[in-house]
Amino acid sequence: MNREHAIGVFDSGIGGLTVVRALHEALPDERIVYFGDTARLPYGTKSATTVAGYAAQITEFLLARDVKMLVVACNTMAAVALPVVTRLASVPVIDVLEAGARAAADRAGARRVAVLATHTTVSSGAYERAIRAQRADLTVISQACPLFAPLVEEGWVDHPVTELAAREYLRPVLAADVDAIVLGCTHYPLLSPLLARLVGPGVVLVDSARTTAARARAALAACDLLRAPGGAAPVHRYYVTDVPPRFREVAALCLGHPLPDVQLVPW
Amino acid sequence: MNREHAIGVFDSGIGGLTVVRALHEALPDERIVYFGDTARLPYGTKSATTVAGYAAQITEFLLARDVKMLVVACNTMAAVALPVVTRLASVPVIDVLEAGARAAADRAGARRVAVLATHTTVSSGAYERAIRAQRADLTVISQACPLFAPLVEEGWVDHPVTELAAREYLRPVLAADVDAIVLGCTHYPLLSPLLARLVGPGVVLVDSARTTAARARAALAACDLLRAPGGAAPVHRYYVTDVPPRFREVAALCLGHPLPDVQLVPW
Repeated sequence: MNREHAIGVFDSGIGGLTVVRALHEALPDERIVYFGDTARLPYGTKSATTVAGYAAQITEFLLARDVKMLVVACNTMAAVALPVVTRLASVPVIDVLEAGARAAADRAGARRVAVLATHTTVSSGAYERAIRAQRADLTVISQACPLFAPLVEEGWVDHPVTELAAREYLRPVLAADVDAIVLGCTHYPLLSPLLARLVGPGVVLVDSARTTAARARAALAACDLLRAPGGAAPVHRYYVTDVPPRFREVAALCLGHPLPDVQLVPW
Repeated sequence: MNREHAIGVFDSGIGGLTVVRALHEALPDERIVYFGDTARLPYGTKSATTVAGYAAQITEFLLARDVKMLVVACNTMAAVALPVVTRLASVPVIDVLEAGARAAADRAGARRVAVLATHTTVSSGAYERAIRAQRADLTVISQACPLFAPLVEEGWVDHPVTELAAREYLRPVLAADVDAIVLGCTHYPLLSPLLARLVGPGVVLVDSARTTAARARAALAACDLLRAPGGAAPVHRYYVTDVPPRFREVAALCLGHPLPDVQLVPW
């Protein structure tokens, strides 16, 4: 394996750029190759079979582009397609769901944890399994929030409609008196200020992007695959299957700075 | 052309089943072959190029299945991909956008008309062109309502969140003092009771499903392609690219009765 190779990061769309942002901070010397399946998003309302098929196609696309690691930056793919990805990949695979589950389980004192995620992620039960594999004593409740991603895409990150939808989704979560809430979809961290206001200071919001980046860093170090610092500035590449209206605004919101040029893959 | 051949109806998902329902009522003897691209929906937030590519693929799929007419039951495809469909098709093509535009223009006394539709449909300007081609004196204002389809998919057809979103979308529409509102997406008729309450009795809601069915009937009659009544009961076929969670509930809501078995096309 070549240390100069890139980290391949993929998502159903551009929400995964929140993970790229965390990777840039944790691993500033690493090259990133990003794939966002913007033509076929969202995945969170689709069947596990369809999501797994798309995940396999993306994995093969990235493996053909000399990557030394894959980061599954989409909770839905991590929930239902991880076996497909790891079977195809000969490189280390890190995923946001495992990272989020560990971050939740590592919270000392937590007894009850909620997971907010898409329909398909919730139906899979993957978060419950991953959290309880770390801490069998934790109670995990899951809540599908299928409108959160469209609301973020609409740019309504702090809007009365979003607040009303959030109150509806959070009602059973708050009634269960949880200590922590895992934001189990890469769009959801953009709603953190609103959600924090609604849940109050006693409940911690767990965003898996930073944990994912920390795990990626540790795995690269363990495999002696970290790119040497001080060389040429890393060049990143971005592939998407569609460039829809409002693409650049939402991408910049997720990435934290304007998105460079993207290459279109016409699937 | 064979009168026994089916009418091919297609949509990005299952909202187009509202058109199938109207076709069943207007043309009870006709066979329907339906295609819903449930794996890649929604189209209304995607680029015109991507939508046109998908429309071409679906058109070829249906033409290979012996259809005597095509009905584009998706406003977004009708707005940006109709030239692609008509170029490929050797059969009559009817579309919901033209039908909706005519229904709006035919309203005697109307002076100002609003169109509610997806981002991609609104950006195309197709409704304005189609309405003003009929009645150049009409003022047309367009409003993108990208959250309506996800809200319907969530089953929140009469819900405080949907009402608040609708109030937001309708504000500029009502301020423009329109006489009629075209429901320019096949999901939106399911919100008719809520919308009617918000706009009041002075504003007519135009749903293109029935007009589309009437135009399909007239075109079949003009081409001498109506299937003879009194023969074997027509057999309908339904193809979809994904069978996601909640698929049957939403399909039944659109179709007005439970959806028969579907065949999965793994695109």
